[in-house]
Amino acid sequence: MGDALPSWNDGATKSAILDFVARTTREGGADFIAPAERIAVFDNDGTLWCEFPLQVQVFFALAEVKRLTQQDPSLLQKPAFKAMIDGDVKTLMSLPKQQVFEPAFATHAGMTVEEFHANAWRWLRQAEHPKLRRPFMHNTFVPQHELLEHLRANGFKTYIVTGGGVEFVRVVAQQLYGIPPEQVVGSSTKMKLEEADGGIVLRKLPELGSFDDREEKVVNIALHIGRRPVFAFGNSDGDLAMIRYTLGGDGPRMAWLLHHDDATREFAYDRDFKLSALREGLDRAGELGIGVVSMQRDWNRVFPEGNDDPTGGIA
Amino acid sequence: MGDALPSWNDGATKSAILDFVARTTREGGADFIAPAERIAVFDNDGTLWCEFPLQVQVFFALAEVKRLTQQDPSLLQKPAFKAMIDGDVKTLMSLPKQQVFEPAFATHAGMTVEEFHANAWRWLRQAEHPKLRRPFMHNTFVPQHELLEHLRANGFKTYIVTGGGVEFVRVVAQQLYGIPPEQVVGSSTKMKLEEADGGIVLRKLPELGSFDDREEKVVNIALHIGRRPVFAFGNSDGDLAMIRYTLGGDGPRMAWLLHHDDATREFAYDRDFKLSALREGLDRAGELGIGVVSMQRDWNRVFPEGNDDPTGGIA
Repeated sequence: MGDALPSWNDGATKSAILDFVARTTREGGADFIAPAERIAVFDNDGTLWCEFPLQVQVFFALAEVKRLTQQDPSLLQKPAFKAMIDGDVKTLMSLPKQQVFEPAFATHAGMTVEEFHANAWRWLRQAEHPKLRRPFMHNTFVPQHELLEHLRANGFKTYIVTGGGVEFVRVVAQQLYGIPPEQVVGSSTKMKLEEADGGIVLRKLPELGSFDDREEKVVNIALHIGRRPVFAFGNSDGDLAMIRYTLGGDGPRMAWLLHHDDATREFAYDRDFKLSALREGLDRAGELGIGVVSMQRDWNRVFPEGNDDPTGGIA
Repeated sequence: MGDALPSWNDGATKSAILDFVARTTREGGADFIAPAERIAVFDNDGTLWCEFPLQVQVFFALAEVKRLTQQDPSLLQKPAFKAMIDGDVKTLMSLPKQQVFEPAFATHAGMTVEEFHANAWRWLRQAEHPKLRRPFMHNTFVPQHELLEHLRANGFKTYIVTGGGVEFVRVVAQQLYGIPPEQVVGSSTKMKLEEADGGIVLRKLPELGSFDDREEKVVNIALHIGRRPVFAFGNSDGDLAMIRYTLGGDGPRMAWLLHHDDATREFAYDRDFKLSALREGLDRAGELGIGVVSMQRDWNRVFPEGNDDPTGGIA
């Protein structure tokens, strides 16, 4: 059998992952986990694709928010809306995450779910990261493609649990990560039903339903999945509750935080990145039994660069 | 190949179901549905198991509510609580569904999710239906076991979308219907995280999160599944929105309402059963393209009677 994780450097991290998958799937072994219980949860922004200097969905909101503030100029009194109109990335990076995501969720309002999908896809398929100078969809992490695929090949069900909008992430989750819509849990707006041509459509409302960050990630895992995961992967303090919930069950468990310490190939940030700070996670990883993955040390490849297939060939 | 639906009588209903599954799974055929899009949604109470004269979860609440009203006597001012304490089934049957389910959701409050599961299971494994004189868990409908199994054997993903509490139904969904927890969508209470022994547990709160009935079923399907189903099965006006949403998409679609017209083997009720009335559904089925299944005419067997395995052998 070949190397299941070729983009991961040999070392303690890679060995620990391969060993966990091997022993939890060895029938009759002490650490065997029944296939139905092999639930693996992954954060998205900063864990499966690049989130710096702003999350992809915030860039999407930047492109959309003009339309909104023209309809309702009073929105300009909100700092995140004003900063978006001004293209003021520095201010955006200094605001609390929920404030910055608010315009992103507001850009959904008034559209049917189908319209939103089409609109988000129209943007996603061509929009480029301003610094990396390539489509956002090419900024996924190849080592994570390999890990997702290795888990699935061993009977794990892989979920995304994201602070991003669930509808936004569903537009690309299958294509980018091989994860179907029903395995994406995320932030959501309220919706209402409307009669249309004798049929029924769902229209998104400007009101936030759930901001799927921190404790709310655990509540939504319980609501949507109904099982405690056995494997979790995140990259910020917003993922700590989900990781601790994962590690808190009986039997073998594993959880990781990705440390963005690679200014050459991606970006180096942690404690001071307000939109997705990694602070408590670094301080308490050892105590809580969380592994820290160093992008610089553990990954020999980051992006699927020079590859026309943004999934890195995973399909 | 044998008969996939032996408990269904030969006739238009059975033929239509078998034909739908055959033509939507025939590769290259005009009505082919890609495996990923084969989402089938089933109501639970009255569709997969008996709901008369009260839903199973209301019987569970009857058994639990004493404890609650002793802790908080002011609850007795609510008609549903008072009727439960008095064992007044007639009054309960006359109240709106959400009012009657309220005590059922309240009985969850204060427990961790794990405690609730254990508590519900302790009751479910032994509690008996007062009229049918056998365990509630033996009151599932064998023809529906066969249909669920036939759909799954043909690549459909089967979901329960229930007005009942999601945690309650998850306790038995795998065993009774072969449906895993992550494929159960239902009503929910709010939850909060708590530190316990250094770990994290989820505690249920007395506040209703979502009452998964009528329009809310569609909203929750969008939120949890993220795809429009292609097959739906219900038995009351509370399922009409979900059914109309299912039928409203492109391509081949199918939806059914189960008509409880069998006073001999189960019960006969429809327009006047307040807790789950079938009125608009009967009046508009033809116009809306919904098939009506007659329990009396279409099923040659109802319950797995005389069978120790409440799943009817489906596993």
